[in-house]
Amino acid sequence: MEIRIIGVRGLPEVQPGMDLTPLILRAAQAQGTPLQENDILVVTQKVVSKAEGRLIELAGVTPSHLAAEWALQYGRDPRLIELALRESKRVSRMDQGVLLVETHHGFHCINAGVDASNIPGSGVVALLPADPDASAARIREEVRQATGAQVAVIITDSWGRPWREGLMNIAIGSAGIGVLKDYRGTTDTYGHELHASAIAVVDEIASAAELVMGKVDMVPVAIVRGYAYTPSNGRVRDLLRDPQRDMFR
Amino acid sequence: MEIRIIGVRGLPEVQPGMDLTPLILRAAQAQGTPLQENDILVVTQKVVSKAEGRLIELAGVTPSHLAAEWALQYGRDPRLIELALRESKRVSRMDQGVLLVETHHGFHCINAGVDASNIPGSGVVALLPADPDASAARIREEVRQATGAQVAVIITDSWGRPWREGLMNIAIGSAGIGVLKDYRGTTDTYGHELHASAIAVVDEIASAAELVMGKVDMVPVAIVRGYAYTPSNGRVRDLLRDPQRDMFR
Repeated sequence: MEIRIIGVRGLPEVQPGMDLTPLILRAAQAQGTPLQENDILVVTQKVVSKAEGRLIELAGVTPSHLAAEWALQYGRDPRLIELALRESKRVSRMDQGVLLVETHHGFHCINAGVDASNIPGSGVVALLPADPDASAARIREEVRQATGAQVAVIITDSWGRPWREGLMNIAIGSAGIGVLKDYRGTTDTYGHELHASAIAVVDEIASAAELVMGKVDMVPVAIVRGYAYTPSNGRVRDLLRDPQRDMFR
Repeated sequence: MEIRIIGVRGLPEVQPGMDLTPLILRAAQAQGTPLQENDILVVTQKVVSKAEGRLIELAGVTPSHLAAEWALQYGRDPRLIELALRESKRVSRMDQGVLLVETHHGFHCINAGVDASNIPGSGVVALLPADPDASAARIREEVRQATGAQVAVIITDSWGRPWREGLMNIAIGSAGIGVLKDYRGTTDTYGHELHASAIAVVDEIASAAELVMGKVDMVPVAIVRGYAYTPSNGRVRDLLRDPQRDMFR
């Protein structure tokens, strides 16, 4: 069994209001790797946010006292902290210079994913897409209409995690693929039933795709080809743990 | 840029004391994908633990009162819980039927990684390797001696995480590759300095490899080919966050 991970280069600078899907299809075609049936198209959050106009000029943001005081204490930009708080429904940790929140989507991430990297000019930041699962579903449908190919789409961002240094790329939105590969109830090679073995395949695919993306090389899209999955209506939203079962609030 | 992830099939059942590296080299050769210079060899923990004799018969384990009472409450095997406690240096959470510990290695994982799946017979469980970085270094050196090829080696296991359902495959040991790809101090395409962007590439490679492994198909080894990395002496141990900076103890 073999899987290929193909980086897609050559996208132009994405501007608010641009149609992202044709840009991706054209770039993939131009480098000789057009999208095929059952491919998994992995797209970084930043280009999706740009196309969807989720860019904010910091100059127009007035920080609250909370944002201003905390940012001052840790040398952060108070306007970015203000935006992070506005994008949140709960602050999980606000300590050691780290603002970890639960976003309106239910994601646990630093600064609510508000980020200034890979945006031209200065003083502009990007918010996460308002509904990344919906963004993925839209791209999937646009690919189908333009090419006839059924693909899966995963939108990704790189986040930290407890206990380990380093970010990992994970899925924030998906369409056309089950988010979990569930081994529960099946048996291993030796006939033992597997109890706790649902694998978060969309997160693993996001991580795999990051290996060809790189943060400084302008490769915001990857194609994962050869992974056998059953098309389904999986959403990243359904991966989020029920707060009742969350031991790390 | 393209990366290939190749599953390696055809390993025999690994018994305690067997030399694992020749079995891997032979299986890769037999399926027509012999190891090459700069490949990354990804090996699941279970076959490493088996080769290193880290198997325990539950019949010989006497649970403590703590293990017995807690296991009874949640319908767990008290002998497995006892082993998990013995493999731990700290209990992080012991709630809702979940035993999350910090292992002697410093890993945060459920049941200290003690697990009964993919082991022939019944009543036998595997512990994690005693020093997975050392296991990876040894396999790397054995590959070099047998083939002349310099490869990187990553040993993996599938663990849960806070906030999201589903396990992800991550690195528990590595050799020959830097564990972090550090973008800090570099600039993005637009000249902004990247501040918080060290990527845990060994974890991402582990996740990528899981996509060809599968829990029920007897594919305990994968080759990741085409990923440009700088050979270095990275150890997973160096990824573990300093407890002083850990907000989730």
